[in-house]
Amino acid sequence: MGILEFDLIKRIQAACDESASKTEGGVVLGIGDDAAILQTLADQSLVVSTDTLVSGVHFLPTDPASSIGHKALAVNLSDLAAMGATPKWITLNLTLPDWNPQWTDDFIAGFVALLKRHHVALVGGDTTRGPLSITVTAMGEAKRCVKRSGAQAGDLIAVSGQLGSAAFALHNPGINADCSTQLHRPNPRLDLVPALRPLATAMIDVSDGLVPDLGHICQASGLGAVLDVDAIPFNPVIQQDPNWLHYVLAGGDDYELCFTLPAAMKSALPSGCTVIGHTIINDGTVETDIRLRQDGLPFEFQPKGFQHFSHET
Amino acid sequence: MGILEFDLIKRIQAACDESASKTEGGVVLGIGDDAAILQTLADQSLVVSTDTLVSGVHFLPTDPASSIGHKALAVNLSDLAAMGATPKWITLNLTLPDWNPQWTDDFIAGFVALLKRHHVALVGGDTTRGPLSITVTAMGEAKRCVKRSGAQAGDLIAVSGQLGSAAFALHNPGINADCSTQLHRPNPRLDLVPALRPLATAMIDVSDGLVPDLGHICQASGLGAVLDVDAIPFNPVIQQDPNWLHYVLAGGDDYELCFTLPAAMKSALPSGCTVIGHTIINDGTVETDIRLRQDGLPFEFQPKGFQHFSHET
Repeated sequence: MGILEFDLIKRIQAACDESASKTEGGVVLGIGDDAAILQTLADQSLVVSTDTLVSGVHFLPTDPASSIGHKALAVNLSDLAAMGATPKWITLNLTLPDWNPQWTDDFIAGFVALLKRHHVALVGGDTTRGPLSITVTAMGEAKRCVKRSGAQAGDLIAVSGQLGSAAFALHNPGINADCSTQLHRPNPRLDLVPALRPLATAMIDVSDGLVPDLGHICQASGLGAVLDVDAIPFNPVIQQDPNWLHYVLAGGDDYELCFTLPAAMKSALPSGCTVIGHTIINDGTVETDIRLRQDGLPFEFQPKGFQHFSHET
Repeated sequence: MGILEFDLIKRIQAACDESASKTEGGVVLGIGDDAAILQTLADQSLVVSTDTLVSGVHFLPTDPASSIGHKALAVNLSDLAAMGATPKWITLNLTLPDWNPQWTDDFIAGFVALLKRHHVALVGGDTTRGPLSITVTAMGEAKRCVKRSGAQAGDLIAVSGQLGSAAFALHNPGINADCSTQLHRPNPRLDLVPALRPLATAMIDVSDGLVPDLGHICQASGLGAVLDVDAIPFNPVIQQDPNWLHYVLAGGDDYELCFTLPAAMKSALPSGCTVIGHTIINDGTVETDIRLRQDGLPFEFQPKGFQHFSHET
């Protein structure tokens, strides 16, 4: 098996070439030198996110390769969306145990389709032999970023899309196509960035689960939150699983956006987003003060979100 | 074992904090949000390099953890040096099979010492459970980059330092401390960047070996080369191994710089650099026309440089 067979980075670049004219540009020198040379816009910040997906931890070895390719890119694009940034360039480090042409073709297909959809350029990376894992580093730009720390007391809390579908699909494989898509081919909500960048005071993507991720916003902003459990949008199909509400509140992997906005701006909420609560002053008695309410009464919930020992930035 | 024990990224950042004031800056928001926010300089290009090191492929599981930490960063900084760029920010993705406090402390020590030496800021990353591997993505800046493609026919070819030491140490462990350091703790030649950025017409770091890496310059520049084998600098200690000349010509892993410069600029060659040949017009009869000479006569050499199926950019 020759070095060229494994030169996936160049193959992916070739697969992207037909859409090169659609990219925003800024690639002075791409793959083939010691490093890529990129031209950033003078009035924008550079926004960088990176995540590693390991076989058996973040996906199953038996998952379709096209889904793995899609998801490795999607989780990073989702991080940029959560910053209100526009992705421009990515690098891909792919470690493969062996040479499987069909797997490789499928991986490239899933990866490139998402890359093209968002007009992102692959500017570097490497392929290495070893246990299957994928690291993507995504670089984007934004004039104004939306941090986790910008929420103000009294802001509304909103989410995009529906929550709990990915966790439902994880525990009930093959039952519902929409939920399966949410798990295996999550859609980074870059479509909402133009509307949310000027609107959101704080934002995060729902990767760990709603309550844990809202907790990150609350901690960074020094606030508490009140959530109306009945307001949280979900796909009714998940109610066939007795744990469905747990999936909604802490299931994770949905890659929807959770954000805060000034109450006065509620009418500017984009279509497909739902207000689910509001922030409150944290009285300091607990580190993360997220109060769940149902029919106006306290709702007891102990988050048991899936945690491997990954720290994602 | 808790999530916090594995939160190495934050631990490394904390270890770097004391040198934070020395960094060139540009970090608007570091670790702890969905992505880092960085401010690039308006008149400079962004230069990005990434490499994955896998246990058993790029290093031995028994190598000292501090060396692994050093090397994972060094190979990326070396790529930026080869572009004539100044490193500013890096991300680190660390996949660990289990929790070994001593290993972790040592890894951090080796990684952070090199990070501090070059005033580079860690801006993101993640830690995941899985087979040991390390991905570093390094970002730097340069007003003018030195590409592989810029060599002109008649340019001199030069290298920094000595070649062959790393390969000698790989095949003769424990024999010579200097060679062992070259293999396990290579020194990215960022010290030469200020002198070489305005001087070099093309540049690459010697990771695969002199002849293969010079071949990359020749291919990118559409040229051939004549190398004077006797001019190539090496540590005399390696001559105790009968394969020593192979290590010099194709050993790899030295992470010295190989570059071309106009013949008229020879007097500007920095101290510690040696002219070893010159570029010629490629007559097109062979794809890579590198002619080795010894005492003015052709020197037969079949490069057998170490190749895993890695493609490094």
